[in-house]
Amino acid sequence: MTADTEAKVEAAERAALELATVAESDRNAALDAIAGAIDESREEILAANADDVAAAEDLLEAGEYTQALVDRLDVDDAKLDSIVAMVESVAARDDPLGETLDARHLDDDLDLYKVAVPIGVIGTVFESRPDALVQIAALALKSGNAVILKGGSEASESNRELFEIIREAAQSVDAIPEGWVQLIEARAAVDTVLEMDESIDLLMPRGSSAFVSYVQDNTQIPVLGHTEGVCHVFVDREADLDEAVEVAYDAKVQYPAVCNAVETLLVHEAVAEAFLPRVAERYAEAGVELRGDERTRAVLADADVEVSEATEADWTTEYGDLILSIRIVESLRAAIDHVNSNGSKHTESILTEDDARARQFMTRIDASSVFHNASTRFADGYRYGLGAEVGISTGKIHARGPVGLEGLTTYKYYLEGDGHLVATYAGEDAVPFTHEPFDGTF
Amino acid sequence: MTADTEAKVEAAERAALELATVAESDRNAALDAIAGAIDESREEILAANADDVAAAEDLLEAGEYTQALVDRLDVDDAKLDSIVAMVESVAARDDPLGETLDARHLDDDLDLYKVAVPIGVIGTVFESRPDALVQIAALALKSGNAVILKGGSEASESNRELFEIIREAAQSVDAIPEGWVQLIEARAAVDTVLEMDESIDLLMPRGSSAFVSYVQDNTQIPVLGHTEGVCHVFVDREADLDEAVEVAYDAKVQYPAVCNAVETLLVHEAVAEAFLPRVAERYAEAGVELRGDERTRAVLADADVEVSEATEADWTTEYGDLILSIRIVESLRAAIDHVNSNGSKHTESILTEDDARARQFMTRIDASSVFHNASTRFADGYRYGLGAEVGISTGKIHARGPVGLEGLTTYKYYLEGDGHLVATYAGEDAVPFTHEPFDGTF
Repeated sequence: MTADTEAKVEAAERAALELATVAESDRNAALDAIAGAIDESREEILAANADDVAAAEDLLEAGEYTQALVDRLDVDDAKLDSIVAMVESVAARDDPLGETLDARHLDDDLDLYKVAVPIGVIGTVFESRPDALVQIAALALKSGNAVILKGGSEASESNRELFEIIREAAQSVDAIPEGWVQLIEARAAVDTVLEMDESIDLLMPRGSSAFVSYVQDNTQIPVLGHTEGVCHVFVDREADLDEAVEVAYDAKVQYPAVCNAVETLLVHEAVAEAFLPRVAERYAEAGVELRGDERTRAVLADADVEVSEATEADWTTEYGDLILSIRIVESLRAAIDHVNSNGSKHTESILTEDDARARQFMTRIDASSVFHNASTRFADGYRYGLGAEVGISTGKIHARGPVGLEGLTTYKYYLEGDGHLVATYAGEDAVPFTHEPFDGTF
Repeated sequence: MTADTEAKVEAAERAALELATVAESDRNAALDAIAGAIDESREEILAANADDVAAAEDLLEAGEYTQALVDRLDVDDAKLDSIVAMVESVAARDDPLGETLDARHLDDDLDLYKVAVPIGVIGTVFESRPDALVQIAALALKSGNAVILKGGSEASESNRELFEIIREAAQSVDAIPEGWVQLIEARAAVDTVLEMDESIDLLMPRGSSAFVSYVQDNTQIPVLGHTEGVCHVFVDREADLDEAVEVAYDAKVQYPAVCNAVETLLVHEAVAEAFLPRVAERYAEAGVELRGDERTRAVLADADVEVSEATEADWTTEYGDLILSIRIVESLRAAIDHVNSNGSKHTESILTEDDARARQFMTRIDASSVFHNASTRFADGYRYGLGAEVGISTGKIHARGPVGLEGLTTYKYYLEGDGHLVATYAGEDAVPFTHEPFDGTF
């Protein structure tokens, strides 16, 4: 345990109790102040970011970093515009707090309310992307949660600058308690955070599956984690093949590095000969490396594309790249079984003109998102209309799939009585409860 | 890993995929069959239970068990009546599955549905109470979840008998997949369950805090656990003291062994002299042992009751017995701080005629249930109108407080498209999303 980190987490815990009762107008005023401060501090942010980018480019030259990661780290004026707009859009969203989710009379003058409240203290770990820090802090503030931020070390200068801007700007609104946002930097600090289960209510790690697994192994705090996306597109025997070529292409090529890109294409045997050569040609144009099962390789033997042999490991691999495995299946049932056995419960899509077969696929597959005639790439908080997302959860508990503001809330029961005793409702002369729902708010 | 347990969990995993698509009418038919089978197997159940009770009475004589635990284990005809009625009432509840929680158009012919679905495979560990096994199995079946049951060893004969009755009765309905309910018995089997994070979606352990903590320390599976209930009643300076005496009495005495009984009574200094002697007298009649801070002991020095000195440990202890700690506080704020520092976020109650002060207390205290002028003993799934409860969660994630059927569900996104590509909605000529909510069901 590092004392400094402990002190930060404890400050966040105290702040969370205060922040839970701060009015929506004050939280929004703080968000507006943050957007304004970022807008006015462009010079300082760009200077800090330039230091990070320079260091990352040294790593790149040494072969220890990729151009894609440098691009993700790099902030320019246009990216700052989008960061400012993002904070403003979080401020503009409906308040996720205070809504009465359920209200019922238990008896005369005994009314129960179930009300949306913040979770409390949320610990986050995220990749080297300065915009991620701002987005997570903004979503936490909007939903009344204190937040511990740990960004990738390559973004440390940018993160420190943005953190200070956010902290100071929020402080300009009197009602916002000090300490609601905390930045930690050392890896040892993460281990301290994992031990503080009495103070932290939820962990949201982003990053590699190995890291999320490390977190789950080393803490008693609930983890809302994103492990991996092994997504499938199934081209059914009843598919519109013209449409299927386009969707299969989009799902892989439009942005291959992300978790909702397709990794395995399943093709019904009845359409394999008609479909595979066409889609393979499109993939070849985009430079997609293909790995097929035996039947796929036989079907594509005469086509002008190379298809290497898929191994067992290919069926469970998230390539995150222009690589695709292909398997021919003999039935809808076989496709469903392949997905349930090998998928990561992220996003799955069936392409078919037969609605009954689509429904079979959709209801029998256990995944957070299941699509019919659409690209897997639609699985995303922004596209779903949830606003900015704090992450995508591959677990099934609390929040599933893209997690927006609602995933940062829990609820609390309020009971308003008039000296009511349980003894009245127990034993032989027990008064019955009415349990009558009513339209009321706490 | 024990191979037998592994096989059971894997069978449950396969069954869960099937059970998720079983129609409500079939699940209810199976519940009715279970209720009928229990009703018709009274003789066998009572015989098995008699063996358990005889063994427990031997333990009792040897001083290794308590009469209360024997009573909880004991099943008679009246208890069987209530078990049968409970299963019937679970069958009669609204279906927790299939509800479209949200529907929105993303664009023309691109519709997103968020639909309630079962969680999958739920692992449960519960105390030596035969009715608990039936209740958990019934709630799992109603909500479409496969379930691993591990009951207390003292109830092993009763559990085995009830498990076989449930398994066979459910099998009489064709649509119910084999393997949805599994019984494990050895402690080693529990450790195997904890390791099977690929197959089990949620753990719901009941029992001691130490056991729940052991589970959290030894698994990557999300845990919905009940640790302890250190509940408070705060008698404010604006309390109706007649009413306060009755509520404080009910909260401790009506059933002291349960988690929602009060453990610490906080009293505003302005009413301490008027209130404490009165309530202490009532408690003394019921044999409640009192432990007070210095000021409490001074106020009660002349009263005809004994008050021992409360230590720091008393403020965080769940007695589960006729013991109560008492502290005088100088303000509403001090009461809130005491609860937030020492409580277990379970159930807290303020007694006051001042609504503004009540609201302060209720919104500033971080607990799953916060009451105004009512006994803490109301915190319970049945009293809240949730129907039978599968447990009370002291965590803040997924389900909080009493957990009924809704807590056994998660959701899934279904997207219906017509060959939609993400490329259409990206880049310079991006088509905007409409994100328009509509009244529709999947």
